[in-house]
Amino acid sequence: MAKQKPSIPSGTRDFNPETVAKRRYIFEAIKTVFDKYCYQPIETPSFENLSTLTGKYGDEGDQLLFKILNSRLHDSKDKEKIKSDFDKMLEQSFNSENISERALRYDLTVPFARYVVMHQNEITFPFRRYQMQPVWRADRPQKGRYREFWQCDADVIGSDSLIFEMELVRIYDEVFSKLKLPVAIHLNNRKILSGIAEAMNATDKFMDITIAIDKFDKVGLQGVRQDLHNKGISESQMQVLERFFSLTGIEIEKLEKAGVLMGDSEIGKLGIQELKNVLNYLSLSGTTNSEIKIDFTLARGLNYYTGAIIEVKPVTVQMGSLGGGGRYDNLTSMFGLDGVSGVGISFGADRMYDVLEELKLFPEESLKTTQVLFVCFDEKGIEFALPLAQQFRNENISTELYPSAEKLKKQMKYANDKKIPFVIVIGDEEMKSGKLAFKNMNSGEQRLLSSDEIISELKK
Amino acid sequence: MAKQKPSIPSGTRDFNPETVAKRRYIFEAIKTVFDKYCYQPIETPSFENLSTLTGKYGDEGDQLLFKILNSRLHDSKDKEKIKSDFDKMLEQSFNSENISERALRYDLTVPFARYVVMHQNEITFPFRRYQMQPVWRADRPQKGRYREFWQCDADVIGSDSLIFEMELVRIYDEVFSKLKLPVAIHLNNRKILSGIAEAMNATDKFMDITIAIDKFDKVGLQGVRQDLHNKGISESQMQVLERFFSLTGIEIEKLEKAGVLMGDSEIGKLGIQELKNVLNYLSLSGTTNSEIKIDFTLARGLNYYTGAIIEVKPVTVQMGSLGGGGRYDNLTSMFGLDGVSGVGISFGADRMYDVLEELKLFPEESLKTTQVLFVCFDEKGIEFALPLAQQFRNENISTELYPSAEKLKKQMKYANDKKIPFVIVIGDEEMKSGKLAFKNMNSGEQRLLSSDEIISELKK
Repeated sequence: MAKQKPSIPSGTRDFNPETVAKRRYIFEAIKTVFDKYCYQPIETPSFENLSTLTGKYGDEGDQLLFKILNSRLHDSKDKEKIKSDFDKMLEQSFNSENISERALRYDLTVPFARYVVMHQNEITFPFRRYQMQPVWRADRPQKGRYREFWQCDADVIGSDSLIFEMELVRIYDEVFSKLKLPVAIHLNNRKILSGIAEAMNATDKFMDITIAIDKFDKVGLQGVRQDLHNKGISESQMQVLERFFSLTGIEIEKLEKAGVLMGDSEIGKLGIQELKNVLNYLSLSGTTNSEIKIDFTLARGLNYYTGAIIEVKPVTVQMGSLGGGGRYDNLTSMFGLDGVSGVGISFGADRMYDVLEELKLFPEESLKTTQVLFVCFDEKGIEFALPLAQQFRNENISTELYPSAEKLKKQMKYANDKKIPFVIVIGDEEMKSGKLAFKNMNSGEQRLLSSDEIISELKK
Repeated sequence: MAKQKPSIPSGTRDFNPETVAKRRYIFEAIKTVFDKYCYQPIETPSFENLSTLTGKYGDEGDQLLFKILNSRLHDSKDKEKIKSDFDKMLEQSFNSENISERALRYDLTVPFARYVVMHQNEITFPFRRYQMQPVWRADRPQKGRYREFWQCDADVIGSDSLIFEMELVRIYDEVFSKLKLPVAIHLNNRKILSGIAEAMNATDKFMDITIAIDKFDKVGLQGVRQDLHNKGISESQMQVLERFFSLTGIEIEKLEKAGVLMGDSEIGKLGIQELKNVLNYLSLSGTTNSEIKIDFTLARGLNYYTGAIIEVKPVTVQMGSLGGGGRYDNLTSMFGLDGVSGVGISFGADRMYDVLEELKLFPEESLKTTQVLFVCFDEKGIEFALPLAQQFRNENISTELYPSAEKLKKQMKYANDKKIPFVIVIGDEEMKSGKLAFKNMNSGEQRLLSSDEIISELKK
């Protein structure tokens, strides 16, 4: 085997024990709340048939799929066909089953739609599902953007009840409360955006308007103005739009006022009514810790949303969205199952990690590993410590025994490097008396205690 | 978007909620014990640089790597070079960075070795790590063999202390005890196998002997005989080997007797002494639930083992190994770091799943999802139920509210299909009195109780 200096592919990460512990803290918080709201976990394969994925994410998305090379190409009989397919692939973005018939999953939404269609006869609808798995995108890596990252999605499919919009908002609220991370949950509705376009008398420019609004956070009102001006939106049309943006009052009032501005737009009024119902359900089910904001600038560029649009933003730190979602009416149509409405949300685990880190919100408790280390000076000490270490483990105390009779200094350095909070020193005296030297590594305090006394100390 | 009948790649699986819950039950048991023994979790990327993986698993292994096609091949300038590389790939198993520079991880061992070498300056040695992640192999799928499957590995690197052999055996013992799955833990030592080859006067045929013994389970003594005969082992040499296989007595006696048979083989005696120490450490640290078996037929075909060899087998059902491992002295040498000894074990999660399923050992508790469903008949009922459902969730009771006012029969069918154990029916009477109809779906019993009374029932 040739020796080599090892590295990992760009855009990927090794997670060390501390990072894994912190990530788990996030995933566990999300999972606990999903479970409480009766969302059920599924898992899908890391790679899908290429045909399942292509054409679902636009041309740009297709370019970002990680395709898997068919194995044993050189065993194949039809080499000429493979060669000519490969030539086409080199000339343009061409897919050939001869060369690649599988690709890594790009998100959890398309695999979920595929899952629902494939398993529709086993599923009890409405089906609340969640999924927490990595996805892969051949994007250019940059700060905060990885080629392998985790998505945490909850969706319910097979019902158009607005109860679920309420549930998903509450799930956001509970997860971020649990993490002690103050957020605002922004709500809008795709139908309201349609109504605004109607009120602007610009229904034909609906997509342009949505795309422009979607950038509001980044470019501000002036940017949106400029963008829409370039797309042919007149000054008077723009004024109608801005009237929606500048509505004030508590959330229900903003909706009332928007309803008036909407005029006769049927779809717009429907959107207003839907959001009112969601707010009503939310208030009936109790107060939230998070601020709930009606936000007519919220668009989310995703084509498939048809109703509610949801987005979560941190309030004490300048950072983009921590998650988002919405209602879609046609997700499974791409696989031939029509008329199934769904609504879902996603948590941006990587960005949540960054915010919790910045705000120092990871509790010490979540990083706890070894609680106690036994330190011995000779084989006799080790043999004396073995049953004790096991006794501690039987009491569910994470326990290590330093595995060889090294110098005290070296063993203490090990405890310090690993931030082990307690050390038990086994010397000749301790073996004779049965009273063990129990040292608190933070305070430096050392006491002589029996193993039972130490166990009850540690279990406090 | 073209409609298509969806499917998944052969050798991969969708996991439905019940299967995910059962798999979690296994992973949680393993994780809990790893944590208690202070093994720390790491995670590595799903794909590695191709050069990190090739040449590590033999020619056969190289063929089984899932290679990822470089993206945007058609953007590349040097198309002629790419074409000629592709032609070479078609003619033979040829790797080209122009075509693929990444591959999905094949196991967790090589990525771990790569991790240790890359992060050696941050790691406190001895380093106990565990890793529970999927791996991918382009093997021909068959019953029980998948192209995507999970490995759960625990290793400790940077110490040759036999304390760790003991720890890892105890970890096996505790995990399988927790799962109530009776197993035997088989132990051998690569040095003993070397000693046996010396005693047979067949040191030059050591690999042949190891490979033959490794198949003992499948082909029996006669098969091993035949195989070794073909490899040029004489009848008298075979008799020496069989003497080891037929040793009887308790485990420590078997070791004593093997020591005698070993004659002057230094390496053999060292192996015997190592296993004796491990048995001694095991007995000092307390009894095990699992049978511990010294087994001289245990070889495990892996080239890199240099000391202890461990394998776990179920005792109440006919099935292959549920896990295995051993000590290796040179794992990180492939990445240029010499002289680092390690020992590790692996759990075969998929096979454990099959055994637990066959023996019906998954506890009901592990499958629990929704505890209670609120059933309503009109919008007024739903609004009445909303704060109650939230009250239940605040008490950590997994609660669903049927999201629309459907017929009772339809809602009850939903509860039955989802095996929800309790249903609360909200009718006009219930709203008036505040006493709710609380139905046990298993017994059929129905009582009128206040929400507080129901909560304390459910929390019992």
